[in-house]
Amino acid sequence: MHFADTLAEAIDRCGAPACVGLDPVLEKIPQSSLDSTAREGGDDVEALGDFCIGVLSAVRDAGVTVVKPQSACFERHGAPGFVQLERVVAEAHRLGLLVILDAKRGDIGVSAQHYAAWVFDHLDAHAVTVSPYLGPDTLEPFVRDGRGMFVLVRTSNPESDTVQSPILADGRSIAELMADTVREIGDHRRGGRGLSDIGAVVGATKAAEAAALRRRMPDQFFLVPGFGAQGGTIDDVRRMMREGARTPGELGVVVNASRSVIYAPAHPGEPWQGAVRAAAESLVRELRELC
Amino acid sequence: MHFADTLAEAIDRCGAPACVGLDPVLEKIPQSSLDSTAREGGDDVEALGDFCIGVLSAVRDAGVTVVKPQSACFERHGAPGFVQLERVVAEAHRLGLLVILDAKRGDIGVSAQHYAAWVFDHLDAHAVTVSPYLGPDTLEPFVRDGRGMFVLVRTSNPESDTVQSPILADGRSIAELMADTVREIGDHRRGGRGLSDIGAVVGATKAAEAAALRRRMPDQFFLVPGFGAQGGTIDDVRRMMREGARTPGELGVVVNASRSVIYAPAHPGEPWQGAVRAAAESLVRELRELC
Repeated sequence: MHFADTLAEAIDRCGAPACVGLDPVLEKIPQSSLDSTAREGGDDVEALGDFCIGVLSAVRDAGVTVVKPQSACFERHGAPGFVQLERVVAEAHRLGLLVILDAKRGDIGVSAQHYAAWVFDHLDAHAVTVSPYLGPDTLEPFVRDGRGMFVLVRTSNPESDTVQSPILADGRSIAELMADTVREIGDHRRGGRGLSDIGAVVGATKAAEAAALRRRMPDQFFLVPGFGAQGGTIDDVRRMMREGARTPGELGVVVNASRSVIYAPAHPGEPWQGAVRAAAESLVRELRELC
Repeated sequence: MHFADTLAEAIDRCGAPACVGLDPVLEKIPQSSLDSTAREGGDDVEALGDFCIGVLSAVRDAGVTVVKPQSACFERHGAPGFVQLERVVAEAHRLGLLVILDAKRGDIGVSAQHYAAWVFDHLDAHAVTVSPYLGPDTLEPFVRDGRGMFVLVRTSNPESDTVQSPILADGRSIAELMADTVREIGDHRRGGRGLSDIGAVVGATKAAEAAALRRRMPDQFFLVPGFGAQGGTIDDVRRMMREGARTPGELGVVVNASRSVIYAPAHPGEPWQGAVRAAAESLVRELRELC
């Protein structure tokens, strides 16, 4: 099945373009989750996996259908971290969740092929984020039938302007140059819903530029980080939406919240997964307003 | 010790700015190396590590002091690949070789911190390659006393022009914008030899632009891929060198060759490591002409 159709269908099932980011760090994991791992004889790195697996079932129960593991959180622990990432992706598959691996890889051809083999063949993620600085030929290895790629175009971090905002002699910003590149690579790769399987990362905090980017990428999925904890609002997302959508999945956005969901504080006596589920339900409810 | 001093000293010990890239792929590993792993009961992924460890001792015997493992080659195999990468870096340390991990990471602040923790604390590499599209704040986590970073500025792959060559309204190319960013981040971080620990990746095949990039980064180390198999020549490298160098280590370049060294064909009956050693000796001899 075409990735953009798979993603649109997942969003329709949820009723909102919601994605929950899995950014596990030991210092933030609820004590009761850490205790549970320790009781089973697990170590600190297993605690990351156990926590994420607990999050997966909580957000699935809230109706979320798309998750985005942040590879860096696992990789920092080396090989054992990789084992946990594999566990988490496998569990997401078991629960029927769509997995966008946030790995931001980008390397010359043969190395990009290695990374694509890791992401798609080894880990079996549905899609991956990639970094475009090396040029289109370094993105091509991630183009694969049935899989998706989100190219970094406009990011939500404070100093992204230094690199993404300068204006070219032809009037485009560097981000707009990237947007045009994304469109060129993927415009002929549309699924049944009219959306391409080559999408873009466009931060929610850059909404002022979002309408212009949407014009350049009318049928590309926007993966939108920066919602919630980083300050992006529902109105910011509205400016990124695709025209003519008949269902939530055709809005062409998938909005990610990480910390505000997975580290939602529990009331005294409430199980931590209850707080995560409630935060995910709240995210879904909020994003349903877009539809 | 300041990374740029460590690197300059390693180059001086070699007498040439030579780096050997470790890009192990199963299909290219000599049969006798594969057989040796199999005899020990090792699997395909261990064969990658065994081969690289054989390469390390061969190139060390040839006088090489700097190596660059390509992380993608190991990562494609998931956790077991990571274990082999750890083994290879540890063996490089044991042999006194300086390790530049070619990982091309680039992510927002907290994720970049995770990657830096992996590269420097977990793997203990001396330096890492990073991708700059997200902006300066995403490079800062890799800035660390005693360690080095090489920022992708101008790469040697065919379609790098699409992203790196467009001219900005202020007259600079995008690569030159990146060069200025590299200089700003690292210009105050110079070691005893006057070189910064924040360097740049500048492909040997882009030598026509190298002189302009050198003017913008007068005291930055250039990590130069694309030499040998990819077509870069000794004259191309010459255009990248720093002025006023008193020793090879102060030329401000470190030139990488991968495939032409590690897959050097052996004569019938010759051990494969002999061919690798001879190719590394030839690389060192060729690069000594720069000094």
